[in-house]
Amino acid sequence: MISFSLRRFTTTSLARAADKSRFVPLSGTYPKGFKVGGLHCGVKKNGNLDLAILTSDIPGSVAAGVFTTNKFKAAPVLVSQSVLKQTDGVNVNAIVVNSGCANAVTGEGGMTDANLMVDTVDRALGNSRPSTLVMSTGVIGQRLPIQKITDGIPKLIASGLGDSHEHWLNCAKAICTTDTFPKLVSKQFAVNGITYTLAGLAKGAGMICPNMATLLGFFVTDAPVSQPALHSILKHATDRSFNCISVDGDMSTNDTISAIANGAAGGATITEGTPEFKVLQDEITGFAQQLAQLVVRDGEGATKFVTIRVEDALSYTDAKQVASSISNSALVKTALYGKDANWGRILCATGYAGVEVVPAKTNVSFVPSDGSAELKLLVNGEPENVDEARALEILEAEDLEIVVQLGTGGGAAAKFWTCDFSHEYVTINGDYRS
Amino acid sequence: MISFSLRRFTTTSLARAADKSRFVPLSGTYPKGFKVGGLHCGVKKNGNLDLAILTSDIPGSVAAGVFTTNKFKAAPVLVSQSVLKQTDGVNVNAIVVNSGCANAVTGEGGMTDANLMVDTVDRALGNSRPSTLVMSTGVIGQRLPIQKITDGIPKLIASGLGDSHEHWLNCAKAICTTDTFPKLVSKQFAVNGITYTLAGLAKGAGMICPNMATLLGFFVTDAPVSQPALHSILKHATDRSFNCISVDGDMSTNDTISAIANGAAGGATITEGTPEFKVLQDEITGFAQQLAQLVVRDGEGATKFVTIRVEDALSYTDAKQVASSISNSALVKTALYGKDANWGRILCATGYAGVEVVPAKTNVSFVPSDGSAELKLLVNGEPENVDEARALEILEAEDLEIVVQLGTGGGAAAKFWTCDFSHEYVTINGDYRS
Repeated sequence: MISFSLRRFTTTSLARAADKSRFVPLSGTYPKGFKVGGLHCGVKKNGNLDLAILTSDIPGSVAAGVFTTNKFKAAPVLVSQSVLKQTDGVNVNAIVVNSGCANAVTGEGGMTDANLMVDTVDRALGNSRPSTLVMSTGVIGQRLPIQKITDGIPKLIASGLGDSHEHWLNCAKAICTTDTFPKLVSKQFAVNGITYTLAGLAKGAGMICPNMATLLGFFVTDAPVSQPALHSILKHATDRSFNCISVDGDMSTNDTISAIANGAAGGATITEGTPEFKVLQDEITGFAQQLAQLVVRDGEGATKFVTIRVEDALSYTDAKQVASSISNSALVKTALYGKDANWGRILCATGYAGVEVVPAKTNVSFVPSDGSAELKLLVNGEPENVDEARALEILEAEDLEIVVQLGTGGGAAAKFWTCDFSHEYVTINGDYRS
Repeated sequence: MISFSLRRFTTTSLARAADKSRFVPLSGTYPKGFKVGGLHCGVKKNGNLDLAILTSDIPGSVAAGVFTTNKFKAAPVLVSQSVLKQTDGVNVNAIVVNSGCANAVTGEGGMTDANLMVDTVDRALGNSRPSTLVMSTGVIGQRLPIQKITDGIPKLIASGLGDSHEHWLNCAKAICTTDTFPKLVSKQFAVNGITYTLAGLAKGAGMICPNMATLLGFFVTDAPVSQPALHSILKHATDRSFNCISVDGDMSTNDTISAIANGAAGGATITEGTPEFKVLQDEITGFAQQLAQLVVRDGEGATKFVTIRVEDALSYTDAKQVASSISNSALVKTALYGKDANWGRILCATGYAGVEVVPAKTNVSFVPSDGSAELKLLVNGEPENVDEARALEILEAEDLEIVVQLGTGGGAAAKFWTCDFSHEYVTINGDYRS
């Protein structure tokens, strides 16, 4: 009986996995004055790309970063934080990333390695002071094969960087670990008649839990922005994007989201409190949500993409807390995988989130992705007589929205994005290192 | 490749599941003056036992209970709380439990049903006021088939109750849902030369997360105890047993642990603050741990039983918080399932627990269950050169202890018990209702 179930689930989700190539863009428009690329330097044993570099041609770029709050911060996190502190985020022109090894919990040796990655990039670019952010992703507790990386960096800078779609795609591929597709987004918008471009990439796909920055990712723009304005926008955007997604509830030692703005497209520098700042903030927040959602799309073993919308909470924080609780519930996630309209688990996760709820005024419904009518499951705390065939129809689709109204009269709302919990998640994570 | 992995994992864990009959006692010694039993009244479609009753022959028994903190408390939780409030826990002589339907999120109708279960038991036993606690377990959001239950109660009381091992075992079986074995423990101890007996039963096996009472369970004793003393002991014991286990991190709407003491074995009434109180508290705490550990042994899909020991924290609360964080990490649990010595995930879960840790003084080790030497993985924040063959040897065993020392100098410690996260967990929970 169990093997029958495994077969049924596996076939379905493998079919879904094959679909995911549709999330990889076939072309893109990229910000001016940046060069990027990726190569295989030898950290990964399978020959895949494992080293990525982004550089700005324009000296005087500004950078900002948000980092994991885990007590065991990986060496690259500590080193990037130090670079931003030393420079106030001004004249930070490059990002270097390796995948395959996280350089986390590696003691003093790990710090030396991360600093050496920064130095090697800076030397190759002719910078005399730290101007590079560093990120690593992969297994925790192993030292980097640092010689391979320091050999790879000048090679990649000398002949592997460019500004074509192919270069950006390679860069996105080079930061992947268990990801099944590279996550790359680009977009244009105008401020005061000048067109600016944003490009960003991210990697998942496990150890994803909202709290602060929750994975590796960065985005860059050719808009001119002051460093404090960029930092403020990055924080705002991250809180509403990467901090609102969940794959497995584990917050990594390496989580980093950073941003660089080089001003190459011209125009006046955008500072906080201006109308231009608001436009840029909204554009970047929407962009970051797009990027963050790709991480959920590629959640380890995921077959579903589920939006959790919580409404009528006393505050945004309360709404987000309930959305997080539902998004992280193993029982909700396995029910979604099994296409089971087991809304009791949604309510259960709502009830233990620790925030104000009025049970007799609570509503739960499924909103299908095809625009057809919502399916009410619970109205004012009383279960509806659910049409199971209709519920299954909604659950068969890859995309689904779950709406929970807490009935407090507070009217506050929040959204979270999550995926289901499948046999593949267990397979991937039961055997990740080998 | 995935199907190979599934096969490998599945074979192993099915073999483990078959082993679990060894946790079912073949005999027991039970407290005086209690009768118990179980029958199939028709809530479960598969014909399994689904109604359990325990009664004390001695009028004037005292009872206590601890309940879920979930905001959506099931009707039986609210009704049992009300019975204890009305009676101050005095002259509460019976417990009735149904499995197969949780009577949770069932509105006013659900409250009527739960009250009717209490009334029906009270009438059949000839009690004129509420003297019965009620519990339900199973699917959320469906009404009880109450007629089947109210028909079953007098039938079970008239001819199904007794004090034999078989009766106790039937009672334990009748409260099971996805459990693979009934959880029944009994034990004797002496206070002032008088022998007292304890018996308890519990059910798991999903929606288990520590916070307060975390599942259905009860234990009874023939020791004479004052009601306040029993309540205090129940709280103490639960905090150190049922609140220190984790299967999947979901806290149920129905969690209830209750206790009844009928004094049938004689002796002076035990009250708080006496040496006898301390003896009884220690005996019941150890007993509750034994019972709680059986719930972890039978965690949905579990193939491993893992003790998480956290030492050198600033406080017991801190130590427990870290132990909980490790115990609930999906990544730690899948690594245990895959027999992967991926201690980085243990450290990662330690780091996001939100308590004081000194990374440079943190130690992690595996303590094997066979009494052989521990395997150090991290010493003073630096990774050891781990002998992978030895690690695999330890991880092959069903039982394992993970020790994490936080290096704070505080010296406080706590233990948690958890299981691994397997393909079967996903299979069971992806398809629980059907």
